[in-house]
Amino acid sequence: MTQPVSATAHRIDAARLREWGTRCLAAAGMTDVDAAQLAASLVQTSLWGIDSHGIALLPHYLDRLANGTIRARPAVVVRRTAPATAMVEADQGHGIVIAHRAMDEAIAIAREQGVGAVGVRDSSHCGAIGLYARQATHAGCVGIAFTHANSVAVPHGGQRAYLGTNPIAIAVPREGAAPVCLDMATTSIPWNRVRNARREGHALPDDVAVDAEGRVTTDAHAAAAVMPLGGAAFGHKGYALALMIDLLCGPLLGNPYGPHIPPMFEALDAPRRLGALFIAIDPERFGGREVLATAAERMAVELAAEPGAPRMPSDPEHDHEAERLRNGVPVEDGLATQCRAWSERLGVRWPEP
Amino acid sequence: MTQPVSATAHRIDAARLREWGTRCLAAAGMTDVDAAQLAASLVQTSLWGIDSHGIALLPHYLDRLANGTIRARPAVVVRRTAPATAMVEADQGHGIVIAHRAMDEAIAIAREQGVGAVGVRDSSHCGAIGLYARQATHAGCVGIAFTHANSVAVPHGGQRAYLGTNPIAIAVPREGAAPVCLDMATTSIPWNRVRNARREGHALPDDVAVDAEGRVTTDAHAAAAVMPLGGAAFGHKGYALALMIDLLCGPLLGNPYGPHIPPMFEALDAPRRLGALFIAIDPERFGGREVLATAAERMAVELAAEPGAPRMPSDPEHDHEAERLRNGVPVEDGLATQCRAWSERLGVRWPEP
Repeated sequence: MTQPVSATAHRIDAARLREWGTRCLAAAGMTDVDAAQLAASLVQTSLWGIDSHGIALLPHYLDRLANGTIRARPAVVVRRTAPATAMVEADQGHGIVIAHRAMDEAIAIAREQGVGAVGVRDSSHCGAIGLYARQATHAGCVGIAFTHANSVAVPHGGQRAYLGTNPIAIAVPREGAAPVCLDMATTSIPWNRVRNARREGHALPDDVAVDAEGRVTTDAHAAAAVMPLGGAAFGHKGYALALMIDLLCGPLLGNPYGPHIPPMFEALDAPRRLGALFIAIDPERFGGREVLATAAERMAVELAAEPGAPRMPSDPEHDHEAERLRNGVPVEDGLATQCRAWSERLGVRWPEP
Repeated sequence: MTQPVSATAHRIDAARLREWGTRCLAAAGMTDVDAAQLAASLVQTSLWGIDSHGIALLPHYLDRLANGTIRARPAVVVRRTAPATAMVEADQGHGIVIAHRAMDEAIAIAREQGVGAVGVRDSSHCGAIGLYARQATHAGCVGIAFTHANSVAVPHGGQRAYLGTNPIAIAVPREGAAPVCLDMATTSIPWNRVRNARREGHALPDDVAVDAEGRVTTDAHAAAAVMPLGGAAFGHKGYALALMIDLLCGPLLGNPYGPHIPPMFEALDAPRRLGALFIAIDPERFGGREVLATAAERMAVELAAEPGAPRMPSDPEHDHEAERLRNGVPVEDGLATQCRAWSERLGVRWPEP
């Protein structure tokens, strides 16, 4: 999901950006604790280079907090539904705060029961789900996370959008290094890459988007939906994965699915009604955390010694993080303008670079 | 994984093929119960059109049963390691029998605890893992299954094979129809499609295989490894998914990973030492089985009404099943020759069409 950063982007120190975000969110009505967690999550996501899901989304979240379609202080209820399962009734709270709470519950259950599965109902956009898979590893667990989204992806064999980009994340501990984490959408590209290509006048890669008649196109302006991972020849795989994830996060948990999910940007007055499913597994009930973490590091060393030196899944994100911790988080011009406007409205000082 | 069936293939009645397989496996030393379960699983897989993992593998399994690298009567131990987790110590038994036993345990745990996670150690090839995801749905649960395999896939950014085709399966119940099931390898094509293309003199599809120098090739004879789902541009996704699945099935459960897994066909004298991870979730502890199954059927109806009429993930398999139940399971010439030889050796009558 890493987007190219333009040369004119402002670079803002991560800690200052986090502090600014926390103040904005508290001024928008969130508790200090929730505001700090949400701002830290967005800045962390930006540090990883996942600009589509980082600080760039803060103005959108502030829009929804202002109009009440994300509740700043929801009445969240966590119900243990069986010894190893729980439901989090999110009451339209912020998806990132809710998801952390749900994975915390899954971890606590996994410590007792070996595995915990926690579903979320009636929530909102939960950002980059690699956050929650990694959260489990920080407690010594394996983390698995699924969420769904509104229709932007064409089904394999179809002609127009039906499913979301429905991502999966899996993370395991890695000895002496940040956890290994997969966090992937089930489409080849996210929808906002189409929007960026339109704005910048770029063509799309081949085999990633279709026009309004369902024909594969590289014309960003003609693109009406993105294609599942695998493209025209093997998109039945990305499509099937997206569909199963939708069933797990939607109907399994009492949430809507696909075209019945209110869209993120196009219907700002409708609560999102999103679900998510979190699974934590305690490796001590299997082969042991140390065996797993040591093997993950050995795998990284072996791969680095292979021809081409392939990298571990989240290593590029950690490179971004190191660079951005030194040089600041890039904030594009348009985003900076939005942030300044929100700063003024909320009475919070924007950290000009 | 569906392969084209040649016009000269024999067609053998599924029930007769199952009976023949059961007798062969019992003659090879398996208990009648295990032999019947294994033969039924292979014939079911062939009925679904997944010829790469169906009855075509029986001669290979008989080879390994004969040389003892699959144990006909293993001393399997199922250990509950926590209230919601268990390990199945497979003692080098047949992977398909072991996997059924592991998912049975996961289902039993899910009924009590809401979710069950069961790992398998020291097992062998477990066939099409859609079998086990579906097994959970037959008990009213959601099923998730992972397994790994020896190195045939090039890592994204690498030049030669390191990971296996490491598949994932997810299944949910569907009202009034067979369960919806995803069962996908994390490479675009399986390695045996390369072998078939060599035999038939066909080219490979573009963007699915690399030669010995790691260059993308459509020449089946030059192909040295298959590429992860997503191809040259987006293969970081298929690669990352395969790598995480390897960590879950290998090191998490005390099994080897990637290049350390003894190969299936190339080292017939080495036990496979394979792992697998099975998760069953009781939907009654979430939104309810009926809500889920009804939504899955409604989704199928909605999709069928979309332009292009996209289908649900496992619908093509059910079409194959209906046709093959009528016309018999295709058995290619080369396979028929192998089956006849085994029939003679084991004193079992081969059901000539």
